[in-house]
Amino acid sequence: MAFLQVTSMEIKISTKQRDYSIYLEHHILEKASELIGNEGKKFIITDSGVPFKWTSLIQKQFPEAKMFVFPCGEQSKSLECYAKIMTWLVENKCSRKDVIIALGGGVVGDLSGFVASTYMRGIKYVNIPTTMLSQIDSSIGGKTAIDFNGLKNIVGSFWQPSMVLIDPDTLSTLSARQLSNGLAEAVKAGLIRDKELFEIFEKDDYLQHIDEIIFRSLMVKKQIVEEDEMEQSVRKLLNFGHSYGHGYESYFKGKYLHGECVAMGMMTILKNEEIRERLRNILLRLHLPVIEECDKDKVAEIITSDKKAAGNKIDIVQVDEIGNGHVETWDISEIRRLLG
Amino acid sequence: MAFLQVTSMEIKISTKQRDYSIYLEHHILEKASELIGNEGKKFIITDSGVPFKWTSLIQKQFPEAKMFVFPCGEQSKSLECYAKIMTWLVENKCSRKDVIIALGGGVVGDLSGFVASTYMRGIKYVNIPTTMLSQIDSSIGGKTAIDFNGLKNIVGSFWQPSMVLIDPDTLSTLSARQLSNGLAEAVKAGLIRDKELFEIFEKDDYLQHIDEIIFRSLMVKKQIVEEDEMEQSVRKLLNFGHSYGHGYESYFKGKYLHGECVAMGMMTILKNEEIRERLRNILLRLHLPVIEECDKDKVAEIITSDKKAAGNKIDIVQVDEIGNGHVETWDISEIRRLLG
Repeated sequence: MAFLQVTSMEIKISTKQRDYSIYLEHHILEKASELIGNEGKKFIITDSGVPFKWTSLIQKQFPEAKMFVFPCGEQSKSLECYAKIMTWLVENKCSRKDVIIALGGGVVGDLSGFVASTYMRGIKYVNIPTTMLSQIDSSIGGKTAIDFNGLKNIVGSFWQPSMVLIDPDTLSTLSARQLSNGLAEAVKAGLIRDKELFEIFEKDDYLQHIDEIIFRSLMVKKQIVEEDEMEQSVRKLLNFGHSYGHGYESYFKGKYLHGECVAMGMMTILKNEEIRERLRNILLRLHLPVIEECDKDKVAEIITSDKKAAGNKIDIVQVDEIGNGHVETWDISEIRRLLG
Repeated sequence: MAFLQVTSMEIKISTKQRDYSIYLEHHILEKASELIGNEGKKFIITDSGVPFKWTSLIQKQFPEAKMFVFPCGEQSKSLECYAKIMTWLVENKCSRKDVIIALGGGVVGDLSGFVASTYMRGIKYVNIPTTMLSQIDSSIGGKTAIDFNGLKNIVGSFWQPSMVLIDPDTLSTLSARQLSNGLAEAVKAGLIRDKELFEIFEKDDYLQHIDEIIFRSLMVKKQIVEEDEMEQSVRKLLNFGHSYGHGYESYFKGKYLHGECVAMGMMTILKNEEIRERLRNILLRLHLPVIEECDKDKVAEIITSDKKAAGNKIDIVQVDEIGNGHVETWDISEIRRLLG
């Protein structure tokens, strides 16, 4: 896989809670200690799926840091795993002035962020996303969460990181499936806000544009999050494909990854035939699933228990023009109907 | 017990997270539904210690509300009880637009606030404190928490309520011990910020001034919280007596109430002999404990694990002049020394 080289780039994110920088740069993980600094003890949280290449690179820069490794997979985004990490922090005397370093994919970031937001009512955390999905989506915006009672992300908080380090080199250790899983969110970002980003995927050489894809996806997210940190309005756009996507994700219980479910979710919700056809071609090119047989009543039941539902209404994102998504409020009965 | 009547009073609190009002008024609980409004479903959280008089008064105003009653006592501020409430909310399809009503003392408020701050990344909650301690202290300022691994309030968040209803009539069902337990925090508020409030307690008829005590304590808290919502600076003053207080509270495991431990904590920390003597006389008048035998090494060990400790340093509040507290940063070894 060939990468276009980005030069060193600092994207400043400004939120009500705090301002912070995203550093996007090849080999930036080698400079982690320099950027993070030596104030406070470091507590590294990672999972068993993160290659030794990256954990050792970080660990050797913080020789005194403690490290917690939990089993990789969505099942670790649980209250049990959360409690184990909290116990570990208490036992290792993590104080209010110390720093959590989240090193890994979306599960590591979501769980570590929730830990950081609630340990002693909130301590600093630095996010080092190492997957495509987390680099372009979950690592910024401050959404943290765990799953609970079979519902995805039902417990969580808004807690902005203090810094995000994105090194596109870490993508070199990802499987093709994991790469496409993340790119589904970039396709989504293109559909709702950036036509040119969407069109990159219509070319066969999209893998030559990975740096640009990351950068453009981050810019879409930055603009939206800065405008609406707490998801009262425009931030809902980022949920395009996610109502059905979360429904599929819970229903298929691990058979499909998050981005794969979002891919199917976008196909389910899109009404515009032309856009739907273009999206289908992109998903096929990325080897992402387009549609899958399921128990439609069950999926609809899961969706109506989702956070995005309230009373008999649910906010749904629709795209009638590429690069320009909008929010619609539906009666909840529409959800089942659209599944056919 | 005779109360001075306050007329209807609305105290507006302005924080970064949100602005909200505290309504302080006799019989205001009878108007709860009018003030809270009918937007969203209501989920009442209370404990077994809250008199039927108050739970029924609220319940009859929200006939469709669900109610969760947990066993009263600090032991319910646990991850287990938190998980039970979260399950209850999920099963009853609480949505993002619904409202939690916390009805009870500090434990109810701390736990319900933490639930509200993390359910679906945060939903509204109305706090109706029914004890002296919660009315003058824990119901405002947005600190939420549970205990974990034997440490008090080690897990929690900052989450401001949407409204606070304080009805001094609810104090009529409190025991004398519970009343004094709360007044310890008012004495503290006087020592750090309001000399006249402190001096009310030097008169035998202080119980005739309950409304004024509540009002003045709220004003101290309002000013401090508005200035420093996230406890980066001046808010630390509110922790006067609390480092040792929390140490005693964990150590004595339920033998002493929170305010009683703060009373002992203030006596431990105060250096100024004249103020210490005046405080001792007040505490004796309120039947609050002044000092108690304990294993000093153990208490010191607990304190150094507290949130307020960081590295080898701990922030401690001292009062050299009544109404004017200040923060000092100590070496952690000082903690044990002061215990004698």
